Amino acid sequence: MKVAIVPGDGIGREVVPVAEGVLRYIRPEWDYYPVEVGYGRWERCGAAIGAEEIRALSEADAILFGAVTTPPDPDYLSVLLQIRHDLDLYANVRPVRGPGVDLIIVRENTEGLYSGIEWSLPGSACTLRVVTERGSRRIARFAAGLVKGGHLTIGTKANVIKSDVLFRRCVIEEAEAAGVAWEEKYIDALCLDVLMHPARYGVIVTTNIFGDILSDAAGYLVGGLGMLPSANIGDKHAFFEPVHGSAPDIAGRGIANPVAAIRSAALLLAHFGYADEAVAVDAAVNAALAAGVRTPDLGGAASTVQVGEAVIGRIREW
Amino acid sequence: MKVAIVPGDGIGREVVPVAEGVLRYIRPEWDYYPVEVGYGRWERCGAAIGAEEIRALSEADAILFGAVTTPPDPDYLSVLLQIRHDLDLYANVRPVRGPGVDLIIVRENTEGLYSGIEWSLPGSACTLRVVTERGSRRIARFAAGLVKGGHLTIGTKANVIKSDVLFRRCVIEEAEAAGVAWEEKYIDALCLDVLMHPARYGVIVTTNIFGDILSDAAGYLVGGLGMLPSANIGDKHAFFEPVHGSAPDIAGRGIANPVAAIRSAALLLAHFGYADEAVAVDAAVNAALAAGVRTPDLGGAASTVQVGEAVIGRIREW
Ligand SMILES: CC(C)[C@H](C(=O)O)[C@@H](O)C(=O)O
Ligand SMILES: CC(C)[C@H](C(=O)O)[C@@H](O)C(=O)O
Repeated sequence: MKVAIVPGDGIGREVVPVAEGVLRYIRPEWDYYPVEVGYGRWERCGAAIGAEEIRALSEADAILFGAVTTPPDPDYLSVLLQIRHDLDLYANVRPVRGPGVDLIIVRENTEGLYSGIEWSLPGSACTLRVVTERGSRRIARFAAGLVKGGHLTIGTKANVIKSDVLFRRCVIEEAEAAGVAWEEKYIDALCLDVLMHPARYGVIVTTNIFGDILSDAAGYLVGGLGMLPSANIGDKHAFFEPVHGSAPDIAGRGIANPVAAIRSAALLLAHFGYADEAVAVDAAVNAALAAGVRTPDLGGAASTVQVGEAVIGRIREW
Repeated sequence: MKVAIVPGDGIGREVVPVAEGVLRYIRPEWDYYPVEVGYGRWERCGAAIGAEEIRALSEADAILFGAVTTPPDPDYLSVLLQIRHDLDLYANVRPVRGPGVDLIIVRENTEGLYSGIEWSLPGSACTLRVVTERGSRRIARFAAGLVKGGHLTIGTKANVIKSDVLFRRCVIEEAEAAGVAWEEKYIDALCLDVLMHPARYGVIVTTNIFGDILSDAAGYLVGGLGMLPSANIGDKHAFFEPVHGSAPDIAGRGIANPVAAIRSAALLLAHFGYADEAVAVDAAVNAALAAGVRTPDLGGAASTVQVGEAVIGRIREW
């Protein structure tokens, strides 16, 4: 296994080494190699990522990513979006787990408002929201494949946006073909209902930007973004990252919460068939948190590194 | 004052009469007249609203609206969207108030993903997100005008969507021209932060669908949609409605929460300069709730009508 390690910027440089440490502890024999993207590269070369880095990433079996700071450049294209696009990582999987909450948000990750098809006219600017049948069906199949016994919830704004009528129809057809029960909710109502009644939800599938917003809102259920891991999955590549960003306001102080990054490492393990190891990592995280080893965002006084050490200590005992 | 009363469908038919009763109690001399739109009209004529109803609405000084059920017709155009468009109700104002929360979401109400410019190709469907300088500046001025001492928060996805770069720039320029302090947040992070730290927010301005989602999510802070009123304001017309929909699941049982509709009537009063009366209505609602006169969604056993009576009783004492 070749694993590309991409800390990026800000707290990415603090939490990724901790998550990498967990992976190395469990799979010391894997080949880990760093890939440098982000602000530093942008300052040097005018681009936060280049063809060489994309190639290095595409040669990896798995990628562990931190976060990248947006440079002050109106034409800047997000590194994250470029990687998702170039590696065709079409399924953004965001589990939200905590007391009374066990849901997975499956976000279509390549189209919708992220089409990149945009133009300006004098006095106006347009962005094209593109929904394709192929894109909708593949994310639907992916999401339906994650449903175990429960049902699939489809989040759209098909009451207003006609491109969501296509998305909705494709998802329903694929869910029925897969024998998976489904329900649907408008995305505005869904954001509220997930907060009010999280236990009613299991797997939720939605389009790109709705998934972006819904997953942040759902982060409220588990104490904020410091806790949320994610996987970006394509047919050929797999990319794991905390949902949070580079958090320049707290970067460099050693207090960033590494739980989201460590849980992203657990998703990586699970994706490659190391289910027991993934469970062990998640259990170790929960045990460390329960024992009060928490960073300040969770009301604790532990450092990023101390949380990492506590987690590894508990994996060792597992 | 001519006030059009539009109950619509479902619980709209239960909560609007209660809110109308509050208005009639306070302003018995106004001219109230009903306008029939919604499902019944759609069944009779194939359209939930027609030119005649639009004319009747445009002759009113104010409109009190309930909710409309979406008919099972893929080409159906939402009554609400048609009215917002035809009367150019460009500012959707959604106050969210409760213990520790006092914020106003100002949603641009005429463009963005609600442009109605949509088309299908074989295997794909597109919706055009349109942001105009004129639309952005007028909503920015409106929102800046609501800031009293605090600051204006701008919610965009300008890190990804270039049409939001225009929106952002226009809002910042108008805020600065108005001498109003501003900050900005990406809409995903904003949805979460409003939940985590509501007291940090006052007036928030954002584009159409982001405001749609954010206001539902923020409803969590005050016990759900049953509590949230809204105003849709244009230069010539003013339209007041609860944020909730027609709720067919509970319609007809007399248990719908009328608080959002009553508070919408209070917004109507405030908009036309009856500030003391609006305060009296809101205070009466809060007193009735505090005394335990609550519908089942709030854990109480009161009926829709009982809540209305309790509110009027308390206005009388005020
Ligand atoms: C940083 C940004 C481009 C990104 C997105 O919008 O997808 C982020 O918000 C996320 O959720 O991964
Ligand atoms: C019913 C629907 C068209 C409407 C909207 O999307 O604006 C509703 O969700 C709202 O928030 O008023």
